[in-house]
Amino acid sequence: MSRKWILPEDRFFDPDDSQKKIALEIYHSVKDLPIVSPHGHVDPKLFSKDSEGFGTPADLLIIPDHYVFRLFYSQGLRLEDFGIPRRDGSKEEIEQDHRKIWQRFADNFHMLRTTASYSWLAYEFKFILGIDEIPDSDNAQEIYDDIYEKLKSPEFQPRNLFDRFQIEVLSTTDGAADSLSIHQEIKESGWKGNIIPAFRPDSVMNITSPNFKQEIDKLSNAAGIDIIDFKTYIRALESRRQFFKSMGAVSTDHAVVCPMTSELPEPELNRIFTNALKGESTEAEQAAFSGHMLNEMARMSCEDGMVMQLHPGVLRNHNHMIYDRFGADKGCDIPVTTEFTRNLQPLLSKFGNNPRFTLCLFTVDEYTYSRELAPLAGHYPAIRLGPPWWFNDSWNGMTRFFDSVTETAGLYNLSGFIDDTRAFPSIPARHDVWRRVVSNWLAKMVSRSFIDTQDALDLANMLVYRQPKSVYKLG
Amino acid sequence: MSRKWILPEDRFFDPDDSQKKIALEIYHSVKDLPIVSPHGHVDPKLFSKDSEGFGTPADLLIIPDHYVFRLFYSQGLRLEDFGIPRRDGSKEEIEQDHRKIWQRFADNFHMLRTTASYSWLAYEFKFILGIDEIPDSDNAQEIYDDIYEKLKSPEFQPRNLFDRFQIEVLSTTDGAADSLSIHQEIKESGWKGNIIPAFRPDSVMNITSPNFKQEIDKLSNAAGIDIIDFKTYIRALESRRQFFKSMGAVSTDHAVVCPMTSELPEPELNRIFTNALKGESTEAEQAAFSGHMLNEMARMSCEDGMVMQLHPGVLRNHNHMIYDRFGADKGCDIPVTTEFTRNLQPLLSKFGNNPRFTLCLFTVDEYTYSRELAPLAGHYPAIRLGPPWWFNDSWNGMTRFFDSVTETAGLYNLSGFIDDTRAFPSIPARHDVWRRVVSNWLAKMVSRSFIDTQDALDLANMLVYRQPKSVYKLG
Amino acid sequence: MSRKWILPEDRFFDPDDSQKKIALEIYHSVKDLPIVSPHGHVDPKLFSKDSEGFGTPADLLIIPDHYVFRLFYSQGLRLEDFGIPRRDGSKEEIEQDHRKIWQRFADNFHMLRTTASYSWLAYEFKFILGIDEIPDSDNAQEIYDDIYEKLKSPEFQPRNLFDRFQIEVLSTTDGAADSLSIHQEIKESGWKGNIIPAFRPDSVMNITSPNFKQEIDKLSNAAGIDIIDFKTYIRALESRRQFFKSMGAVSTDHAVVCPMTSELPEPELNRIFTNALKGESTEAEQAAFSGHMLNEMARMSCEDGMVMQLHPGVLRNHNHMIYDRFGADKGCDIPVTTEFTRNLQPLLSKFGNNPRFTLCLFTVDEYTYSRELAPLAGHYPAIRLGPPWWFNDSWNGMTRFFDSVTETAGLYNLSGFIDDTRAFPSIPARHDVWRRVVSNWLAKMVSRSFIDTQDALDLANMLVYRQPKSVYKLG
Repeated sequence: MSRKWILPEDRFFDPDDSQKKIALEIYHSVKDLPIVSPHGHVDPKLFSKDSEGFGTPADLLIIPDHYVFRLFYSQGLRLEDFGIPRRDGSKEEIEQDHRKIWQRFADNFHMLRTTASYSWLAYEFKFILGIDEIPDSDNAQEIYDDIYEKLKSPEFQPRNLFDRFQIEVLSTTDGAADSLSIHQEIKESGWKGNIIPAFRPDSVMNITSPNFKQEIDKLSNAAGIDIIDFKTYIRALESRRQFFKSMGAVSTDHAVVCPMTSELPEPELNRIFTNALKGESTEAEQAAFSGHMLNEMARMSCEDGMVMQLHPGVLRNHNHMIYDRFGADKGCDIPVTTEFTRNLQPLLSKFGNNPRFTLCLFTVDEYTYSRELAPLAGHYPAIRLGPPWWFNDSWNGMTRFFDSVTETAGLYNLSGFIDDTRAFPSIPARHDVWRRVVSNWLAKMVSRSFIDTQDALDLANMLVYRQPKSVYKLG
Repeated sequence: MSRKWILPEDRFFDPDDSQKKIALEIYHSVKDLPIVSPHGHVDPKLFSKDSEGFGTPADLLIIPDHYVFRLFYSQGLRLEDFGIPRRDGSKEEIEQDHRKIWQRFADNFHMLRTTASYSWLAYEFKFILGIDEIPDSDNAQEIYDDIYEKLKSPEFQPRNLFDRFQIEVLSTTDGAADSLSIHQEIKESGWKGNIIPAFRPDSVMNITSPNFKQEIDKLSNAAGIDIIDFKTYIRALESRRQFFKSMGAVSTDHAVVCPMTSELPEPELNRIFTNALKGESTEAEQAAFSGHMLNEMARMSCEDGMVMQLHPGVLRNHNHMIYDRFGADKGCDIPVTTEFTRNLQPLLSKFGNNPRFTLCLFTVDEYTYSRELAPLAGHYPAIRLGPPWWFNDSWNGMTRFFDSVTETAGLYNLSGFIDDTRAFPSIPARHDVWRRVVSNWLAKMVSRSFIDTQDALDLANMLVYRQPKSVYKLG
Repeated sequence: MSRKWILPEDRFFDPDDSQKKIALEIYHSVKDLPIVSPHGHVDPKLFSKDSEGFGTPADLLIIPDHYVFRLFYSQGLRLEDFGIPRRDGSKEEIEQDHRKIWQRFADNFHMLRTTASYSWLAYEFKFILGIDEIPDSDNAQEIYDDIYEKLKSPEFQPRNLFDRFQIEVLSTTDGAADSLSIHQEIKESGWKGNIIPAFRPDSVMNITSPNFKQEIDKLSNAAGIDIIDFKTYIRALESRRQFFKSMGAVSTDHAVVCPMTSELPEPELNRIFTNALKGESTEAEQAAFSGHMLNEMARMSCEDGMVMQLHPGVLRNHNHMIYDRFGADKGCDIPVTTEFTRNLQPLLSKFGNNPRFTLCLFTVDEYTYSRELAPLAGHYPAIRLGPPWWFNDSWNGMTRFFDSVTETAGLYNLSGFIDDTRAFPSIPARHDVWRRVVSNWLAKMVSRSFIDTQDALDLANMLVYRQPKSVYKLG
């Protein structure tokens, strides 16, 4: 017999009655606040007038979610059997029957228990899709039918869900050369959903990439600037930032393995850059160039006011076999030790005191929280700490974050929650975890008399709603 | 007046009543399951027909237990006074009177309070040896007499304790050249205790060791293969693995300071190896050779199916004075930072997707849990995470482990408990701590509604019994 | 309407009733014990016969407290507006009106909620200064008046507060060339407050400092030894240590970025040292020299019995702009990764077994607790672990410390609490946090039956009072 989700109103809260009562009071004060989502990876096409909606239940919950299928893979199941598309487009061996994919998902769903994904999916099944039973081998097809029907209904079209989720603003992440035509189209469509772009220039800064020249050509075209040297390159970037800003962007985003920052002299930069256009560049040059460009991005942020987001420390595509067959973002990105204190010093010494600059720091190396991130955020006016990212975006991960950073950095130096997700239907689930952890953690502080309930209610509102709007200038 | 042990049935559980009730229900469902011990260092001679039993109370609980005497040493007491034998065999200054050793132990026993050893010893005194009082200066000799008598009784002979402990299988750890004659003798003795060997080739891989040539000679003899170059060396290793497997071994074990993995070309390997036989090798060559040999061991595991266990990150014999006087394993092994993501990448990219391969990872650097180990285990099908090892094998250590890895890696990617002990009588005590932590942690998850009680009962059984059997292919 | 402090007797304790009852029993047994403060940075002049007392409320609580004003700075407020003096002595732009400074402090006081400073200030306002209301924009001037009057009263003169705080001994920290004339004067004044110096030779070891020659000249004069080479330098240091010891000093203190230890040959040392006197030295020489000098300091401690304190891992003056304008100690010291195992090995192998040697280790890198510090302290007789330092000197920071080190190192290898503060009125507040965390943590251990209440009462007394006296040889 299939089992039902048990998701009581006091879930995720510590069991002590007196503390839990406070947690519930705090939670009730924030649970219905609008969702502010200043950084994420939802595809804007979902909301265009030609949107194809969410597809099948497998399209919705399995095929695009590497959080989920990586765990099945780790238990010896094959990505092919979950319909993960091959990099070369070939369908050989790739399961095309979404019912079969769904059945496998349900057969193995129990393996996810106690993971962050399990609690997100619980929320999505129960509260978004209205499915009361926990998927298993027996009920798989019935649940498939139920979801499949719902996804075809008007109620479950993306724009309607966006409204139902009470999303006040949703930022996508877009390449530096992106035309933002989808954003433009959405804007002009008359629909009131506020979807803004964010400027992510990684691909035009990665000088060792085999596609570098092509990427620069795209940037040239987009900016309408003939990029022939470092100066024109910088001008093109500045121009694109202006365009993004005019389209509503409030932030830029930068992923690097090592957050080294530095400054190179102009002739050296020019030499590296023009050689790179000819396909000649070394790893050492890439590192130096990346360090300099982070500084340049900080300088531009001081000028145009866009919030600079830094996501360092992930070694991408660790598993070559999977990368060769299925490409990027398949669950094989593994964190490495990240050092902020020395690496960011050049950038911070130059721009960290600038009142126009906001640098939002993220990490997958939580073993920097109390040592580096909290002391840096507790001093530099430019720094705000993003919430626990990726693998740490979970109940325990967030709890450790609050325990480790707040005594040093305070709560005013946090950015509030960032969902950073590709999975649109998981957004309310993820924000709900944050709201619950914030409530539980503040209740812990109240029950130990560090603050009182009035403080907690104010701080919860700030952490859930006011702070992300203010940090990202979404006022 | 001497004090008594207070070890209530609900010990180690969080005090909240509702959560504790769940913890007790879970604990009662697993407390009497058989003990599966797939990795440890108990001397098999203990179970041979010529076993001399456990000796005196000091032989049982003090002299062989560096967890205990290192703490007395840290407080200014001398190892000599606890009868720790000298490396050179000399008895000069070494206390020979076990009653005096025992008295010192009891005089200072209070220093152990709040350590992991204190809770293991509490269990051993109360539940294994039937001693109700906590050792102190007054009751020391009385307790000595009591234990001494018991250790002579048939009930306390090793084979009988093995049965009483309900050990389903116990793995020893054995050198690559070991004849395994004791294992053979035990097998043939008619006693049903299941004691299996594990293949540990460290000494025949450490090319800078002054004994390297001797170790290779022993390997040659044991394998019946004339080792003259890298090829014959590899053949000898393969042959020994086959022999170990035929004797019931299911795993290999590898201790390295740095878990670097790599691949060297054959001529280079041959050069390094043949030079090493002549006593000519450098630290750099040792590092490169070790990296390659980890890859070779993974390759062989893919072929023969033996689980590969990796125990990296311990700097042995940190205190030269103690090493010179007393030798290895005297409590002066100190952990160092361990890096898995980059170091294991070459090995994992080659073998990490192989369905025949299991790599069980251990660490004494817990500051890799959420950053490296959980993401790796949550992706590669070959990886399983061993439980908290050595200094982290404790109530808080285990609790942090579950909090840090499960949301990313899930519970199915853990190996279950490994006691890794030399101290046979501590085995039930150590497994009991695991069972209690598992129960408490799952109760925490139930009381916060992440899972329900039915899930918890299933997962507890898996973590205590099913998982170590399945990961180590123990039937 | 202004709000009042809520500081119940059971604050900071976990909410479970049964555990809290135990915590309260433990706390009541230690709350009134005298304060032992073996390391800190209070200015001894405060207690001289010419003491100017505490000045205004802003002089007392804001201007000297970089824990507080760094947080306002991090939120975009200017240090100038809090009256922080400029390095060059100029008063340009620096607020001189302490009432305005106080108003700004009160206006922004809410930003400190949940930080360690907030709980210290709560204690100081309520229990030391007798202020019931939480500072805010409305009550700021009233509170200013109230405190201002009190600070002029005899009751609030430093010596009287010292007595009221029940400080048994207070150590200052003093340069190697300091005449200790204030200490002498206090001693001779007839007042019974026990204020002792500590020997901190950092400035005479930093060979790359532009002031190095001057510092050595001061050392020469103070010691009455003409320092012309390494030998005379060592003799001068030994002589100063003797002098400090004769003035009551029981410890030395050493701040280094990296705790590397080593030994250089005498000619090499002499060459480095004499070149440094001429202003010629490199970073590499500085590192080698520092490593050697730590070893020398350990050697001298073995001889004169002074406890060696090591405070590594802080990168000072990270924010160049702030340093240039306001100088050192302005909240811009940021921790870096610290490695103890390999770095301390040379020193420990030579002196770590010496019964006359005590090395008290501190860290701002808590991600060394279980990996390095606990195993080192659980073995070497010389090592004691200082309490969580600086950013980790907080409720959560201390709780993590106990959870991470005690199972391996035991409690007997801890030093007890060290307040390490410049802020004299915060001393009772800081010690009270320690006493509360100790009580809460031991109650946690009792409620889980690791120890019983009798153990907890004994261990609490040790951690609060006996241990710092015994580790620092304070009678």
